[in-house]
Amino acid sequence: MSKHIHKVHLKSRTIHPAAYYFEGIKSGNRTILSEAITLVESTNIEHEKVAEDIIELCLPLSGNSIRIGVTGIPGVGKSTFIEAFGLSLVEEQQKKVAVLAIDPSSEKSKGSILGDKTRMTQLSSHQNAFIRPSPSAGKLGGVAEATRETILLCEAAGYDVILIETVGVGQSEITVKSMVDFFLLLMIAGAGDELQGIKRGIMEMADAILINKADGDNVKKAELAQQEYKNALHLFPPNKNGWIPQVATCSALNKENIDVLHEIIDQFVRLTNSNNSFKENRKKQAKFWFDETISNAIKNLFYNDPKIKGELISLERTVIEGEISPFKAAKKLINLFKN
Amino acid sequence: MSKHIHKVHLKSRTIHPAAYYFEGIKSGNRTILSEAITLVESTNIEHEKVAEDIIELCLPLSGNSIRIGVTGIPGVGKSTFIEAFGLSLVEEQQKKVAVLAIDPSSEKSKGSILGDKTRMTQLSSHQNAFIRPSPSAGKLGGVAEATRETILLCEAAGYDVILIETVGVGQSEITVKSMVDFFLLLMIAGAGDELQGIKRGIMEMADAILINKADGDNVKKAELAQQEYKNALHLFPPNKNGWIPQVATCSALNKENIDVLHEIIDQFVRLTNSNNSFKENRKKQAKFWFDETISNAIKNLFYNDPKIKGELISLERTVIEGEISPFKAAKKLINLFKN
Repeated sequence: MSKHIHKVHLKSRTIHPAAYYFEGIKSGNRTILSEAITLVESTNIEHEKVAEDIIELCLPLSGNSIRIGVTGIPGVGKSTFIEAFGLSLVEEQQKKVAVLAIDPSSEKSKGSILGDKTRMTQLSSHQNAFIRPSPSAGKLGGVAEATRETILLCEAAGYDVILIETVGVGQSEITVKSMVDFFLLLMIAGAGDELQGIKRGIMEMADAILINKADGDNVKKAELAQQEYKNALHLFPPNKNGWIPQVATCSALNKENIDVLHEIIDQFVRLTNSNNSFKENRKKQAKFWFDETISNAIKNLFYNDPKIKGELISLERTVIEGEISPFKAAKKLINLFKN
Repeated sequence: MSKHIHKVHLKSRTIHPAAYYFEGIKSGNRTILSEAITLVESTNIEHEKVAEDIIELCLPLSGNSIRIGVTGIPGVGKSTFIEAFGLSLVEEQQKKVAVLAIDPSSEKSKGSILGDKTRMTQLSSHQNAFIRPSPSAGKLGGVAEATRETILLCEAAGYDVILIETVGVGQSEITVKSMVDFFLLLMIAGAGDELQGIKRGIMEMADAILINKADGDNVKKAELAQQEYKNALHLFPPNKNGWIPQVATCSALNKENIDVLHEIIDQFVRLTNSNNSFKENRKKQAKFWFDETISNAIKNLFYNDPKIKGELISLERTVIEGEISPFKAAKKLINLFKN
């Protein structure tokens, strides 16, 4: 929905030169920031060109935020938590906070896009907060590219904390992990069935686990869960950056113990700055997205080749049925592609 | 070392037609099986052709084993365990067992290749066991291709159980996981520093964890570790195939409680056959290797393109230093490749 509004919005106006958006972004104008992000998300060639220039102008001003990924299954209270945490950042810590959502399936579920803003009513009306619904997956680098470039624009606009929320399930956790400094997993007590929604491997990616909804009758259960996750994380091999993932409880609803995350993140930043892994991680991520974009693009070239398209489906079937070695089948296609 | 011996061996003989090797494999001739595997591993074009034909002949006879991946850090007692488990399979269960090792770094560390056979002295001299050191990574599909095709040949030769041991560290666990039905992680008690060697995510891939060296003073510690790992695995999201990873203790040295693995694997096979996930997993793996081989081959085409080679290094540097967006840099290279 909101995407449509933006598009109409843009069409009804002139596209300005990149410098216009850059100046607006620098000065903290949220409307212009929003318009620039819409250009970044657009697949229109004219828009893309301006967007590239805006990004190039913003790059030298970017990189000065802490980028935090927030994930958790539906029902864990993600929006309530982000609202509470965001408010504590803007009100108590005088920070500027941007909230971005990433949803690889957003093209199908445009209905949910407007939801974010309406859920975070207090935060979205704060002058130092900027909430942006998730982009759709039209571009070459898809949602990841649009989100990563949106981070840069928000940083150039002076946002100190960028919260990137995963929406939906699937690959979004890995995508988000590859573009943030700190990865937060929200949980609720009484695990078991609730865990069904979390992909295997997500827990090992977490820099912190917060057991939310530690309120009312739930406090004891949450504390028990905290201990269990602590024990479990202890069994994981240590992170290369030396960070030991932290586990805590909180109640986003009652805004209780939200501060614990400030402390955890401060510790994390201090440690990773002192051993240089903070910067190294960002360099690795830039390299990752470079490699990833190339990999996706050359796969597109291959799988859209008419010669390949003609053979792929039948060959794939024989591979799956065990009638041909997958390696031999692959070589057949590669030879077809080369000629 | 042993690879060199094989090569000389082949050179000094005529290469037979594929049917010769196929008949030898079918009849259970281990020398001919060995020679055929050497052809599969070879990068010589003449050898490759015969190897492809041998694989094609063997394919209809393959697939009837249980493929078991065995991993664990150095010092965990992998060889001792495989020897004990292998012997219990051939002696008590009247099975035919093939042991393959996979070592992505084998080209550099040929010294370790001969080690396997000398370490598993009892098993290697048993008539129903076949131990094969790891191939080197010369082929397009690398070590994975050679190993996966070796599995097919061993199955055609009537081996009921294929044990694939990871050697060294790195990506080999993921490679092995993608070619086996059942993945076993060997551990020792007193975790902590020992875990350093295990990559994050390996524990979640395990279908069973065996705490080895549960002997002497170590029994209590091993049982404690067993309980800890059980608790930890319980916190993981469940496997899609419905299997709950099992944890047990054993002493490979004293050949104690090795049988527990027979029971676990029997349960696993029964469950995954009953819900069809055993076969589905193999189909998925065939598709995976098909896609993976294509992906690697087209990356080779790209990165070996002289135009790309000329630009890549300097562009990569600007990406890592944050001077250019990784997406923009990738697009530059893609456009260069297309023209």
